[in-house]
Amino acid sequence: MYNIKLLLEFDGTSYSGWLRQGNENISTVQETVEKAIFDLTGTRVEITGCSRTDAGVHAVNYVTNFQIDTLIPPENFYKALNPFLPDNIKAKISCKVEDDFHATYSAKRKTYRYYFYFGETQRPMFINRAWNAGKKLDVSSDEALELMNDACAFFIGKHDFSSFKATGGLAKTSVRTIFDAAVCCCGDNMYFLEICGDGFLYNMVRIIVGTLAGVAMGRFAPCEIAQMIEAKDRKKAGVTAPPHGLYLYKVEY
Amino acid sequence: MYNIKLLLEFDGTSYSGWLRQGNENISTVQETVEKAIFDLTGTRVEITGCSRTDAGVHAVNYVTNFQIDTLIPPENFYKALNPFLPDNIKAKISCKVEDDFHATYSAKRKTYRYYFYFGETQRPMFINRAWNAGKKLDVSSDEALELMNDACAFFIGKHDFSSFKATGGLAKTSVRTIFDAAVCCCGDNMYFLEICGDGFLYNMVRIIVGTLAGVAMGRFAPCEIAQMIEAKDRKKAGVTAPPHGLYLYKVEY
Repeated sequence: MYNIKLLLEFDGTSYSGWLRQGNENISTVQETVEKAIFDLTGTRVEITGCSRTDAGVHAVNYVTNFQIDTLIPPENFYKALNPFLPDNIKAKISCKVEDDFHATYSAKRKTYRYYFYFGETQRPMFINRAWNAGKKLDVSSDEALELMNDACAFFIGKHDFSSFKATGGLAKTSVRTIFDAAVCCCGDNMYFLEICGDGFLYNMVRIIVGTLAGVAMGRFAPCEIAQMIEAKDRKKAGVTAPPHGLYLYKVEY
Repeated sequence: MYNIKLLLEFDGTSYSGWLRQGNENISTVQETVEKAIFDLTGTRVEITGCSRTDAGVHAVNYVTNFQIDTLIPPENFYKALNPFLPDNIKAKISCKVEDDFHATYSAKRKTYRYYFYFGETQRPMFINRAWNAGKKLDVSSDEALELMNDACAFFIGKHDFSSFKATGGLAKTSVRTIFDAAVCCCGDNMYFLEICGDGFLYNMVRIIVGTLAGVAMGRFAPCEIAQMIEAKDRKKAGVTAPPHGLYLYKVEY
């Protein structure tokens, strides 16, 4: 019996998120990968994912693990599995890990990226890929970037992020530590937030992005972030950015 | 009567290229935009495009022009048009231009980008967006980049590009001038070629990319590009990269 760690990339557009729903009319990434493993090995396994991603959210490096009795060498498992996966989910690496490795509980740092842009029109090349946040302030891209990064600095550290949490999450505490958060410009009015923390509350990255876009649009001053955190009140923060700009980027153990 | 210049962005995935085909079962970008202009104005116009893009090719800044008698202010035309266009085609700017402006013949410099990556698996996030070129040489990304840029240098200048031309083009001469060509790294094993010239032969950018990928894969040495050009023989160059990594990026007049 092996405990196999399997790394996935997926386009979440056509899935109702990661978690199995037990509803035949709903397709989730977990069910799709479990079915592929069954088709390859004849064995039904339950896979553990590193995060419950929402419908429409993507992943570049999504970590899973599962126990399986197989003769397929663990480091080759991902290659054997790929022909059984649809084009919008692919396995990238697999390896044998210690018995106590758990994709959720062993995670120490998670990094997300969120891609967004300003402009009056939804861009055809970025449907289901990046958020059209609307019109930014009439300032240069460099100035907008500086404003957003001034705001980012307030998120770094250990805080109660109740103001940046949607209702419906299962977390016992709203305290999280953000190790790093920065916005980069990656094209004409196109940006991404890269944010790394010990964990994230329900919709937390999406609310942070909605708030940063609010800064670039002149709704908030960067220094107001401190008061938003202090308030522990969801209504003080910005809008929730939509799921399709969000990418689970890296998980460290 | 105005001569209006209209800038478009489109995702070419579901279109049989730019050019009207006169076949009801085939959808092209030109027909789709002409129909939208008719739906907005009640006037049938013939629009001129800056380039005949192939099926699956995208455009970030595609220039068109057309003559129309309208009361809509030319600089607002694109805004009025967008509700009549599908999500995968959007108008970005419009303005009145001189009567003799012609999107094809007035073009002085065209810039294309081609996105490609190396790796054993097709990446879910880049289906219809970037080419999976296969496995590169066992060298670092920096070394692969250097090899491809050494090769790029040979394309710059005025040359007969017969070796980099597919059959079926309408061009009278195979001589073109390349002003600039360089490969950039934009992520993990992900690259793009940006190439600017006075014009391009049929499939020319795609054959150049196929050849550059061949350099990174060890099939060709960079200095062999000079001999390929000299040979004026399509068989000496690399494969034709697929259309879905190609983006018309900019046209200068």
